[in-house]
Formats: sequence, structure tokens, C-alpha cells
Amino acid sequence: MSKYKMILDLDTGIDDALAIAYALATPESELIGIVSSYGNVLVERAAQNSLNLLELLGHKEVPVFTGLSHSSTTSHFEVMPISAQIHGVNGVGEVALKKASRPVEKMNGVDFLIESAHTYKKDLIIVPTGPLTNLAAAINKDPSIVDLIGNVTLMGGALTVPGNVTPVTEANINQDPIAANQVFRSNLNLTMVGLDVTTRTLLTTNETSTWRALATTAGEKYADIVDYYIEAYKVTSPHLGGCALHDPLAVAVAVEPSLVSTLDLNMKVDTKAPFAGRTIGDETRINLPATHTKVAVNVNTQKFLAEFMQSLTQLFSKN
Amino acid sequence: MSKYKMILDLDTGIDDALAIAYALATPESELIGIVSSYGNVLVERAAQNSLNLLELLGHKEVPVFTGLSHSSTTSHFEVMPISAQIHGVNGVGEVALKKASRPVEKMNGVDFLIESAHTYKKDLIIVPTGPLTNLAAAINKDPSIVDLIGNVTLMGGALTVPGNVTPVTEANINQDPIAANQVFRSNLNLTMVGLDVTTRTLLTTNETSTWRALATTAGEKYADIVDYYIEAYKVTSPHLGGCALHDPLAVAVAVEPSLVSTLDLNMKVDTKAPFAGRTIGDETRINLPATHTKVAVNVNTQKFLAEFMQSLTQLFSKN
Repeated sequence: MSKYKMILDLDTGIDDALAIAYALATPESELIGIVSSYGNVLVERAAQNSLNLLELLGHKEVPVFTGLSHSSTTSHFEVMPISAQIHGVNGVGEVALKKASRPVEKMNGVDFLIESAHTYKKDLIIVPTGPLTNLAAAINKDPSIVDLIGNVTLMGGALTVPGNVTPVTEANINQDPIAANQVFRSNLNLTMVGLDVTTRTLLTTNETSTWRALATTAGEKYADIVDYYIEAYKVTSPHLGGCALHDPLAVAVAVEPSLVSTLDLNMKVDTKAPFAGRTIGDETRINLPATHTKVAVNVNTQKFLAEFMQSLTQLFSKN
Repeated sequence: MSKYKMILDLDTGIDDALAIAYALATPESELIGIVSSYGNVLVERAAQNSLNLLELLGHKEVPVFTGLSHSSTTSHFEVMPISAQIHGVNGVGEVALKKASRPVEKMNGVDFLIESAHTYKKDLIIVPTGPLTNLAAAINKDPSIVDLIGNVTLMGGALTVPGNVTPVTEANINQDPIAANQVFRSNLNLTMVGLDVTTRTLLTTNETSTWRALATTAGEKYADIVDYYIEAYKVTSPHLGGCALHDPLAVAVAVEPSLVSTLDLNMKVDTKAPFAGRTIGDETRINLPATHTKVAVNVNTQKFLAEFMQSLTQLFSKN
């Protein structure tokens, strides 16, 4: 039995789909649930995508919860055109997936985060790869959880490189800068896995063709889904030469921190235009010890890619 | 005789005055000249301040050159009110200094940089602590120098913390983002010593009182000058609890790189509003090896402060 219990908090688009696969494949932790968020898709679509992917991968024992449907400062959410361009309107590259037999849980995702914090305490790892709205809401509802949770390893932000929405903002943080600022300034044990490192871990059709060659349903579906993502990256980020493994890298770092080198830095998120959503060191706490927050600034790309491909290929070969 | 030859490129305000003292005090390199820039003060005032300080410190053998009087994209320059507030209208905290007997050199500062690059090659260290206008102009006039110069260690920029002019721009880079971008994107061996580390090296009146107690002219004048700076910091940066040793830290790192930990990162400077002047990793070169540029992200504060105080106190005790 794995010592660590992992909760993913996903706006299930394509790299979220890879994060689910990696979380299921790694023996280091047990995936105890997926909380859904808005972002790449609407929250309801994110939940359904997660359920469908879990069943595709032979893990329908994992419950999926609905989280909040919009940011802490808005009353509704619409998917940005760029999100649909990168992930497809359905979030999984317009690939048709069999609808899962399992429904979404009745319990709210925010309450599941709180309950799990109290149940598993230091053994709980939360990996948010979308907006930080659910986590901030959980902290607001029960502030005691910040000292209970073992670790939060989030995909989001950009410290040493430009953002991907504006020159200063990364997409996940941009969705809800107020919530993100609250999470970053809390006492949570936090590791930020941002564009600094995720744009250094790239996948190409060389890798997806390996999965397609498995001739399994999971292998073929994931190859189709990720090929859509790779094509989108050719248009949106032609300088990279592949698609960035944003969300699965966060999962990998959560269970194997040595994959990245980190800076200890007290962080904040700017909340005022035109800089809203920028993740940056907090100048008012620069001379205080940064005991809670680590920012990944470099990554052992070769090691991660090798482990990623080995884990996912093995998982896909069985489904 | 020192192996390394150092040129300072200064807009001589208060921390520049400390940089001059540190450069004279360190046995690791020989200060062969000071090029003057606009910024904290007008270029003519910067040159005169440097001459006066060199003579105060017993080193009138060091020549001072006039550099460019405004940025590469403007036709004139006016000192910002905030600069006068921090450094005083005269740049040295309204402290009266005896006018130097030596005049400014006839040779232009840009030509002095070029000539020195050809004369000293890899033994040449350039430490710009103001705008990068002079260095960019030298590169434009003679592109061969980028491969000749041993190292450029500049004070400027902010990678992991906010700027001090806007949330994204540091004062020196802000003066001439186009020139700075050219320098950062060149093949120069470059070390950036920015607000990331300089706001972690602070001086208080505890230290300046040590200098005043020496009862020498240099000790008393420097104590008066720096006390003005400490008072200004109480207003502009009350969270720091002292004044930042921006420029002298760059001099120290130039001769003792191990004082800081650095990131290897290909850098650029944003040149368009509202982000103009921001120093950030170049996303188009993130997966290329960063063989030329190092960004200081942490500093051995205790070691630097001990060496700084020992060097300057010894220098001031003799003048």
C-alpha cells in the first residue's frame, strides 16, 4: 500500500489526461480522488472527462468530485478560445471517449479536500493543475487544513520565464489571481511547478507513435488525444518543438521532488492589472526564511521523460 | 599586480560611491577607469562625483570618462524625482565634497570600453551599475568586443522579485530597455546581480557609525553620504530595514563569484509597454544551453557584509 494519498484538482484537458495516467501509473502514491475545476473546459466537462479517462485506464474505483465552476471574483466562466484551440472543444482533442458508467460524486470537491486533509494529514499530497479556486475555497472554509496537508505541488505560474497568456501571466494562475495569491501566501507546504520547467519537458509524435503501436484502446486513444495537442503547439508555441508536459510533470515532482531543482522563495501573486496573475517573489518577505514555498527552476528532463514514457507505456499496454 | 583589470560604468549616486570604495579596496582587481553614465544624476555630475570620491579616497590616478548622456531611444535625460529623493540632488546625499584637482578625460567612455577590451581581453571585467547604454553603444561600434571581454557583472534587473520602478522593472534597466536587451541577448559573458540579491544585503547606521568613529575625512564623509541613503530607504522601502548595497555587491561578485548562487538562463529584456524593462528568461531559447548568462538568485549575505565592512573600514581609516 502506498504511503502517500494523492488528490488531483484538474480542469481536465489534454495534459490533465496525462497527469491522470501518470498518477495511476506511479507506485509512490495512491490516487484517492479527482476534484474538478473550470479552465481548459467547463467544470462539468472536466468531471466527465476525468471519469471517462479513469474508466479507459481501468481505474473506475477512483471517485471524481465537482469543484467550483468559476473564479472567486466572477459569477460565471466561459472557456477561452485559446483553450479550445489547444485542448479541443471537448477538452480531449475532439477524440470520442466511451462515457463512464460511474457518476460524479455527490460530495462537493471543496469538502472532499477538507475531509481528506483531516483524514490523511501529512500523508496527503494535493496536485492542482488548474485554477487554485477550489484550494483557496477549502482554506477559507477550514483554515486549519494548511497545517495538516503534507504537500501541495501545483502546476502553474512562471517565475523566470514569460507567461503563456500575457508576458507576465500563466493560464492557471490567470484564471483566479486572488485565489492563487491566497494559496501562495498561506503556510501550505507548496512546490510551484511552472512554465520555468514544464516548457523544458516536451513530447513529440515519436512518443505517441509508441503508444499507438501498442494497439490497445488506451494506447490508441491517448495517442490521438496527444497528437491533437502536439499539432496545436506547432501553432501556439512553434519555438518549443513539441508539446509541454505541464500537468504530468507536477504529478511526477509531487512524488519525486529530486526531479527538479528549486528556489526557496516566499511568493505572491500580483492581483492588479496589467500585472494580475504574475507569480513573483514577495519583496516584503524577501529577508524572511522561505520555509514553506519552493519554486522549481530547473528539471532533469531526460530522467523525467524516461520515467514518464516507461510508466505510461506500461499502463497503456494493459488497457 | 592584480591579474584582473576592472572598469566601473557608474551613474554616481550613493551606492555607486560605495562601489568605487569597494573596487579600490579589493586586491583581486585593479580599477583602471570609471566610465560615467546618466541615471541617478546627469552624466556630467556622475563624472564629477566619481573624480571627487576617487580623490577623497586617495586614488586620483584612476581616470574618469564621460559616457552617453541619455538613452539610446531618447534625445535628452532628466533625473527622476525619486532618484533625487534617494541619492540627493547632487547624487551624494547633499554632502559637500572637495572638488577633485584631476579633470575628466578627453577620450569618450564608449571608446575607452572598446580600447580596454582590445588591450586586456579576458583579463577585463566591466561592472556597469547604471543604464546599459554605454556598453550597448560600444558593442554597436565594435561588435568584436563581446568575444574579447572576460566578464560583465552588472547591477540591474529583477528576475525573481518585483522591480523598484514598476512591479516589473528595475531602475537601471528601465532607463534604456533597448540597450539592455541588446546586452542580455549578446554573447557577452554576463552575470546579472539584480534586486533578487541586492535587497538581501543591507546596511544600517550601526555600520556607518563605525566609519564615523574612524574620525578620518573619508570615514566621516562616507558615513554622512550613506546615512542620507538609509533615511531615504526608510521612506521608499520601509520593509527592508536598511539600505540595499546594490552596486558594491556587483563589484564583489565580479571578483568573487562564489558569493552568489546563480541560474544559467538565456535572458531577454521586454521592450514594449507596460512590461518594458522587465528582465526575464527568453522563452524562445529556454531549451538551448545557457552558456553565457548567469543570474544571481541567492547571496551569502553574512560573508559579503563581513568582507564589505572590513575592506571599506580599512580604506576609510587611511584617508
